[in-house]
Formats: sequence, C-alpha cells, structure tokens
Amino acid sequence: MDRRNFLKTAGLVSGATAASTLAAPAYAQGKRTLKMVTCWPKNFPGLGTGAQRIADNLGALTDGRITVKLYSAGELVPAYEAYDAVMNGTADLYHASEYFFVGKSKALAFFTTVPMGMTAAEFNSWIYHEGGQELWDELAAKFNIKSFACGNTGAQMGGWFNKEITSVEDLKGLKMRIPGIGGEVLRRLGGSAVSLPGGEIFQALQTGAIDATEFVGPWNDLALGFYKVAKFYYYPGFHEPSGGISLGINLDLFNDLSKADQAMLKTACLAEDNLLTTEFNARNGAALEQLVNKHHVQLKRYPQDVYDEIGRVCEEVVAEFGAEDELSGRIYQSYLKARKNVGDWLRITERPFMEGRDRILG
Amino acid sequence: MDRRNFLKTAGLVSGATAASTLAAPAYAQGKRTLKMVTCWPKNFPGLGTGAQRIADNLGALTDGRITVKLYSAGELVPAYEAYDAVMNGTADLYHASEYFFVGKSKALAFFTTVPMGMTAAEFNSWIYHEGGQELWDELAAKFNIKSFACGNTGAQMGGWFNKEITSVEDLKGLKMRIPGIGGEVLRRLGGSAVSLPGGEIFQALQTGAIDATEFVGPWNDLALGFYKVAKFYYYPGFHEPSGGISLGINLDLFNDLSKADQAMLKTACLAEDNLLTTEFNARNGAALEQLVNKHHVQLKRYPQDVYDEIGRVCEEVVAEFGAEDELSGRIYQSYLKARKNVGDWLRITERPFMEGRDRILG
Repeated sequence: MDRRNFLKTAGLVSGATAASTLAAPAYAQGKRTLKMVTCWPKNFPGLGTGAQRIADNLGALTDGRITVKLYSAGELVPAYEAYDAVMNGTADLYHASEYFFVGKSKALAFFTTVPMGMTAAEFNSWIYHEGGQELWDELAAKFNIKSFACGNTGAQMGGWFNKEITSVEDLKGLKMRIPGIGGEVLRRLGGSAVSLPGGEIFQALQTGAIDATEFVGPWNDLALGFYKVAKFYYYPGFHEPSGGISLGINLDLFNDLSKADQAMLKTACLAEDNLLTTEFNARNGAALEQLVNKHHVQLKRYPQDVYDEIGRVCEEVVAEFGAEDELSGRIYQSYLKARKNVGDWLRITERPFMEGRDRILG
Repeated sequence: MDRRNFLKTAGLVSGATAASTLAAPAYAQGKRTLKMVTCWPKNFPGLGTGAQRIADNLGALTDGRITVKLYSAGELVPAYEAYDAVMNGTADLYHASEYFFVGKSKALAFFTTVPMGMTAAEFNSWIYHEGGQELWDELAAKFNIKSFACGNTGAQMGGWFNKEITSVEDLKGLKMRIPGIGGEVLRRLGGSAVSLPGGEIFQALQTGAIDATEFVGPWNDLALGFYKVAKFYYYPGFHEPSGGISLGINLDLFNDLSKADQAMLKTACLAEDNLLTTEFNARNGAALEQLVNKHHVQLKRYPQDVYDEIGRVCEEVVAEFGAEDELSGRIYQSYLKARKNVGDWLRITERPFMEGRDRILG
C-alpha cells in the first residue's frame, strides 16, 4: 500500500482517534518544549542550520517528547545576551560561540579559539580527552551553565583586503572588521579593529567605512558577497585557527534531566559537532572553488615575515587572557600542553603525508 | 544518606519488590539484547575500548531497554567473518574496519582507507556531506547491511624497521607485515608483504621472520612493544592516511527499528566517531612522547624520492580497486572528487597555519 492510500484508508476509520490524540494535553504525555536562543540569523549557513539540525535531532531522538523551539539572534534576546538568558532561565539552551561572552570571563575564549591556538582536531582532542571539558565545566558552573562542543568552523581565512599586505607597516592605520582577541592583536600592530555583525560588513566595506574584513571562510563569505567589494582574499588566518560552536544548557535543568536524557544531550552534541565540523570543510572547499574560478578572487598568502610578527604578538595577547585569575591560569596551561601534545603528533603524520600527496598528485 | 545506608534500609522494606522486579521477563519490559561482534581483542586500546564505549552508550541512551553484548574477535565468530555474521543474522552488529571484508567487494576498502587517500577530516566530509554515505549504503545493501563511520585512527605511521630506507632499492626483498592494498603496493616495489594479526607481530619481528612492520600509531605500537625489537620508526605512512572504523547492522533489523531508534543509532555512531578519532590524536601524541623520550626510538622520515615513487604506485593500485564494477567506479570517482575538494581547502588553511605556528613557536 502506498502512503497516500494508507492515509486515505486510515482517515476513514480513525478520524475520531486521531482527533482525540491531537487534543490530549502535551504535559499528560510527558512532553516538554525547550527554548533555544542562538547568536545567528535563522538558517545562516552552518551556524543557523547547525542550530536547527540539533534542535530537530533532539526531537527525533525523543520521538517528540522534547521539542526544541529555536530563536534566532534578537528574537527572544539580543545575540550576545544568550549566555545571560540561559544563566537566569529566560531560555533553556543556547547555540553560540563562547568568545561572545568574554565579558563574563576572558577564559571563555579558550573554548572557542585563540590566535595561534589549536586547530579543530587539536581542540577536540583537548576537550574530550585532555581535560578541556572538565575545566570548561568548572568555569561554566560559576554561571550556572553546562556547555558542550557542538561544531567547528575549522581554520578561518585571513580576510578580505583591497590593498596588498607586503609588510607589517601595511597594517598600521588599517581599519579592519576583526572582533575579539584577533582585533586586540591588530591594535597592537597599529591597526584599528572594529566589531560589526555579519549583516553590516558588506556595506561598510563597500562605502570604505572599513578597509578590510575577516569573517569565517568561503562558505559564509561567498554568501555575504564580499568578493564583489574586495579583491584579495588572504590566508591563512592567524586569529581563529578553529572556531568552536557550543551548546549550553541551564545547569539546574541539566541536573534535573534523567541519566538517559543527559546521555542523549551529550551524544547529540558530539554527533552535531562531528557533522557540522565536517560540513564546514566540505562546503568551504566547494565555495572556494567558486570564488576562485567563477568570481576570480585573488588568493594571497601573508608574507612569512608579516605572519611571524603577527604570531609573536598573538602569543603575548593570549597569555594575558590566561592570566585573569587562578582558574584562567589552569585553563591556559592545559590549553598550551594539549596544543603541544597533539601538534607534535600531527606534525609527523597528517602534515607530511599531505605534503607528500600534493607533490605526487601535482 | 550515603549509598550503603540507603541499600540497607531499602533491603529491609522492599526485598519482595526487588525480587519481583528482577524476576520479570525482559521481553515484557520491551528489553532487547543485541549481539555485537568485533575484530579486536577485548579492550584493545582505541579499537576494543571504542567498541565497548558505543555498546555501553546504546545502553545508557535507551535506559537499558537495549543491551549490547560485545564479543571480541574469535569469541562468537573469527574476526574477518564479522561481516558474514551480521549479513546472515548470526550477530546483529559488528565493530570493524570495512577493508577486512574486501573479499565481498574491493570497493569496501574506500570506506576504511586507501593508500594516498583521504585524511580523517577529508574522509568524514565525504561520508557525511559529499555522497559517501549514500554510496556506502548502496554497496552494503547488497550484503543486507547498513554501516556507519564509528571512529578513525587518523594518519598512521610508516612502520618499524631495523635498517634505514635510503632508496626504493631498500624495499626490494624486504619482508614486511603490511596487509591489504598497502601490501600490494609493497609487492609491486619488489618487497614481500605478509599479513599477521596484531598479537603475532612482535615475535615475528624478534625472530627475524619479518624485517619490518607497520601497525597503527604510537598508542597501539607502544602497547605491543615494537620499540624493543626495532630501531627506526618511519613516517609518514603512505598506506593508511586515515583508518576508518565502522559499525554495521543487519539491514532487516535496522529497517525494523523505530524512527527514534534509527536516529539514536545514527547519532551514537556520529558521537563515537568524534570521540574515538580525537582520542587517537590525544593518545598518539602522549605515546609518541614516551617512545622518543623514554624509549629513545629514532624517528625517521621517508626520503622524498622514495615516498614519491611509492606514491605513484599507490595511485595505480587504488585505480584498480575502483575498477571492479560499475558501482566501484562511481565510488572511486566520488572519492577522488572529495579528496580534491576538501584537500584544496585544507591546503590554504590548516596546513599553512600549522606551518606558520611551528615557525613562531619554534
């Protein structure tokens, strides 16, 4: 029997039953709706779509017992107030990046990314196997929150420029959209860092209000059309070698969940982390191909001496973020240790393999 | 009340209830036990422990409604008969690597790894976002199986040698433990490839029955003690740039599961894939440090001309694996396309970032 016939037949005999099922109050069936605030526009590539995917999956995993209602940035609370909203119970969950909330604690930045920090693979090794999650729990508990890794943008691009960067001098006076710690690095090199939401960047670049911008990577940057108003696309980014996306839950609510529901939430985050991180790699690859071959964007690599000078400033600034208090110090030391541990391993395996493969494939 | 007191008190008043709960038949509570066969010794680092972790998690996620009973290699069926066992229903699930089953179809190798193939990050981008899973489903359905990615060893080491490899000539006559397609590559270069289970390698190397061996990476190789009988540890491996681990389920059983249980199984595999892949990176880093600093193992990189010659043979051999039939051809073409797509992206982001970071950190 095909589905259409089945529905028709079922309708004839069970209309009354169907109606009574629909009328049953949700709480009688143990149903529950959780509010999830996000820092993204609805369905924005990767960020908004990832939030929607885990919301949907939590519904699927519980067969509808839990429904997650998603609020885009500004819908229930402004984007950067998502942490406060979950802390005080206005919302149950957030889908965000921890570094938006450095006003609470600078050390939250380590759970998104820091300049010259870890790649996505290194970061997840730290979170899941080298003490990162335990430190994150300790920090987030101060704000009545429990957070999980829930995706990663991967290493981001250096940004869009209309003039070439040939020396550190070229950064002096440069007005660039680059928020957070990366912005602080640019300021120390004499540039002028500004913070603008994604939706306002294009116009600022077009009107000359800013000279340059970084955002995420080809998938997102193509969607925002930066190639129309900037000529050069620099790589590699120094400021966000990975971009952690997180799901946070009110800690009281988490503690009230059954063991099975806690396992389900943790497992759903691990799964979405895997799906979204690999999706960024897949879509960035395809979008990069379009940017270069269809839109004739010129890819440029930062000159080595410029990159090295930027890098030295990064290490200084990050050390300051790891010196706020005792817990920040432990997070910073643990972060550095993991960066060395996994970095030393990847240096003799994946990287020389990929170099060799490039030579062989041409 | 501490746990001991609680149990004592509870025992006094509810002995009868407890006994009747224990006596209730499992099926009356909708409980079900699934048999999972594996290709590993119980609790072998990463492979056996990963199998146990997902078995335990499926129990936790269903609050005990589903119990997964794990069988180590040889316990219910011999390791390499795991695929047949799930195909014919002797077991419900397997935890394995697809390339063990190339006797069924050579194309299964693409769902573990092929020489000069994709890294773990690239592989997962293919599986989840570039058509890999759909092709895998099409292939596995021929054997009444549905398979999921469930972990990855990451790029493997080149192997353990007692003589230096300075030219391709040094591979001629070399008797090396290297199974599968990697072994075929060595044979074409004049070497003699043998296949031995993990537990038999140490003795073969000690007695001189073999001259060299590859296995996985530092975490596993340290556990098997190869450093005691071989001097040089070569990198990077050419033969297994990632090592996919998979969970397969009998397709009839999968189709019988509720939508929620199907989502749960898929989500649990995505989660375990994330956990195990990052665990290999973390543990390999720590074990490498021990091998070098405590056991004074000498790390050696394959000379460039040797590696490039090996690589050219790899491409020939892999092309043959992708030419078995029409479906193999589509899998091979899809694999090559994804390797280029994601590889092109990582080439301008993570890799140059890591190179720069190495220079800066020294």
